[in-house]
Amino acid sequence: MATVKLWTDAEADAHPEVKAVFDDIRATRKSDFVNNFWRGLANDPAHLKRIWGQLKEIMVAESTIDPLTKEMVYIAVSVANGCSYCIHSHTAAAKAKGMTDAQHGELLSIIGLAGQTNHLVTAMQIPVDAQFEVKG
Amino acid sequence: MATVKLWTDAEADAHPEVKAVFDDIRATRKSDFVNNFWRGLANDPAHLKRIWGQLKEIMVAESTIDPLTKEMVYIAVSVANGCSYCIHSHTAAAKAKGMTDAQHGELLSIIGLAGQTNHLVTAMQIPVDAQFEVKG
Amino acid sequence: MATVKLWTDAEADAHPEVKAVFDDIRATRKSDFVNNFWRGLANDPAHLKRIWGQLKEIMVAESTIDPLTKEMVYIAVSVANGCSYCIHSHTAAAKAKGMTDAQHGELLSIIGLAGQTNHLVTAMQIPVDAQFEVKG
Amino acid sequence: MATVKLWTDAEADAHPEVKAVFDDIRATRKSDFVNNFWRGLANDPAHLKRIWGQLKEIMVAESTIDPLTKEMVYIAVSVANGCSYCIHSHTAAAKAKGMTDAQHGELLSIIGLAGQTNHLVTAMQIPVDAQFEVKG
Amino acid sequence: MATVKLWTDAEADAHPEVKAVFDDIRATRKSDFVNNFWRGLANDPAHLKRIWGQLKEIMVAESTIDPLTKEMVYIAVSVANGCSYCIHSHTAAAKAKGMTDAQHGELLSIIGLAGQTNHLVTAMQIPVDAQFEVKG
Amino acid sequence: MATVKLWTDAEADAHPEVKAVFDDIRATRKSDFVNNFWRGLANDPAHLKRIWGQLKEIMVAESTIDPLTKEMVYIAVSVANGCSYCIHSHTAAAKAKGMTDAQHGELLSIIGLAGQTNHLVTAMQIPVDAQFEVKG
Repeated sequence: MATVKLWTDAEADAHPEVKAVFDDIRATRKSDFVNNFWRGLANDPAHLKRIWGQLKEIMVAESTIDPLTKEMVYIAVSVANGCSYCIHSHTAAAKAKGMTDAQHGELLSIIGLAGQTNHLVTAMQIPVDAQFEVKG
Repeated sequence: MATVKLWTDAEADAHPEVKAVFDDIRATRKSDFVNNFWRGLANDPAHLKRIWGQLKEIMVAESTIDPLTKEMVYIAVSVANGCSYCIHSHTAAAKAKGMTDAQHGELLSIIGLAGQTNHLVTAMQIPVDAQFEVKG
Repeated sequence: MATVKLWTDAEADAHPEVKAVFDDIRATRKSDFVNNFWRGLANDPAHLKRIWGQLKEIMVAESTIDPLTKEMVYIAVSVANGCSYCIHSHTAAAKAKGMTDAQHGELLSIIGLAGQTNHLVTAMQIPVDAQFEVKG
Repeated sequence: MATVKLWTDAEADAHPEVKAVFDDIRATRKSDFVNNFWRGLANDPAHLKRIWGQLKEIMVAESTIDPLTKEMVYIAVSVANGCSYCIHSHTAAAKAKGMTDAQHGELLSIIGLAGQTNHLVTAMQIPVDAQFEVKG
Repeated sequence: MATVKLWTDAEADAHPEVKAVFDDIRATRKSDFVNNFWRGLANDPAHLKRIWGQLKEIMVAESTIDPLTKEMVYIAVSVANGCSYCIHSHTAAAKAKGMTDAQHGELLSIIGLAGQTNHLVTAMQIPVDAQFEVKG
Repeated sequence: MATVKLWTDAEADAHPEVKAVFDDIRATRKSDFVNNFWRGLANDPAHLKRIWGQLKEIMVAESTIDPLTKEMVYIAVSVANGCSYCIHSHTAAAKAKGMTDAQHGELLSIIGLAGQTNHLVTAMQIPVDAQFEVKG
């Protein structure tokens, strides 16, 4: 149960700005499936457009980081933030981009280890080593 | 200022279990530098050994995820958890493993976008789409 | 499914301290509805009384921040902390205090943007500008 | 100490895309001061432009939420996320937009109370009341 | 719904490494019940073994902190991290180790108060008193 | 650098409500030292009184959880929330209440392990076992 209305296709079709974004999502992803996140954002069409625009620029466009690595980073942030929906959607996306079960298992190990050492470092309040400083 | 003592090399050398781990860190990394995290963990030699053992198995050993991607995932978790020391140390490690400025910039974009959409999804309490479910 | 018992009205009525708080919640809110949070806290009557006392002083009493803004701030904290129940209850409260759909949409934009820039600032470890310092 | 270079004005002036954003920040805020956040983002000019564009649309443009409330919400998210820099910069912004000491004090009370009840709700795993459900 | 397969007993029995860990969990806990966490970790047998090994060393072995206190600390971390499953499993474990309802109520008070003062300290950005510094 | 003024003793002495709380802190703790947290809260005397009142009831009064365990739980929450000041002040308090170095080391192990398994459970989205359900 969401705190906002999730737009149906019929509602989206009746609103040109929302329809334009949904159409672009479908065309970009070559799939008819528009997931619930976008159906919730549709309540604020300008916001929907802005978030989709960013996602397209950052996650879809060609870049110096490969698509699977991007999804792994997204999963990592979502786990640390405890965003259940995001973990589900980006794990599905990572699998669609070729993540094997072995890679998934290793990704979990890294996330778990980072969670552990983050807690240890914070509990000990370790000061940053001079060697890690960025030189102007 | 830490909440625990940070062991000097002289103190580590005088304690065989701690010395063995510090020696292995140096040999594994081919560097004389032992960063403060390990100097704090040294207060509990069994714990020091366990954490280093895990880190070596997960981050150093050959695996299906390349070393730079591992560091990017580590940075992502550390940012979402707000671990300042960890962000510094793993950003330095990622650079040492070849992360370019362009890749660093893109990594930041992904982390920022994930932070944003995590907050939006949580605020809207979006239900998980049936399509994202794992089949037994 | 909770980790504590949720008190029914019958159970609350049989316990004078709990009954007194439930009665005050109903009188203050001019509604018969007592939500599950209070039914869980009832297991520790002194704690129930303390938390309700604070909430009344901070959220209900007249103050220099208007009631709708208070709810928006509450939602913002709850989202960043990932408290699903709290997001639901305070979104409902904000709507009861007049939050329009347009305001809800803008609130979400602000929360999402703050989530994004929080992650970026943390990832870059930006030092605080001297201009932001409070003068004694 | 940041993990990225903080651009000086001279460096920004030498890069047209960065200069254009810095100029717009100064014109919009009617102040010569460009804070460190933007100097860090300047390393990725497209990202700098995107984030500033969003901030202008969400935080600066006229809307249904008043400017001071927006800053209070921003502070609330930043506190829950533990973003020290963001707390400093948005507290300064809130004061510049008229937040009184009394309002600041009350804002802190609300944020603290929300932090407390978020933890209590999560610890008790309170189920969402049917009354809080959004009707389609 | 998990993002990984949860191993049945039949599947575990067919895989010697997984079976060995499940057998040890059962023997150590003197119970036939193996909870879902281990059934998810089973997808990566080396990881399963490593995590169980740590848990046994830290949570099961004799030590200077009593078993109930250990569970209370575990609950506290899990609440602050918003890990619903972990709150359920460790609250059950604490009860099995003798936590009374009164103790549970007090534990919740402490966790709630810590959540509140953590938020207040962070919002005010209180500097650490010199008296709290660890002496070399 | 705080976002609020930290009250000196002279300022506190000149304000009866603040003085009363500072006097009680000193009498209760049998020490002249009043740490910065209270000096920041003094800006809102009613809030100062409320928070100190709670802390006294929860952390100081006799109860079913011993004083050292309370501090360990407080540290655990503060680490997971990344509250640096709180970690320093409650680690100092735990030591003052008798926490040995061995206990401190074990506390860190538990917090680190909880951080790790919290991340793993969240990443795998493990469903709660029926056995963990509270019976009404």
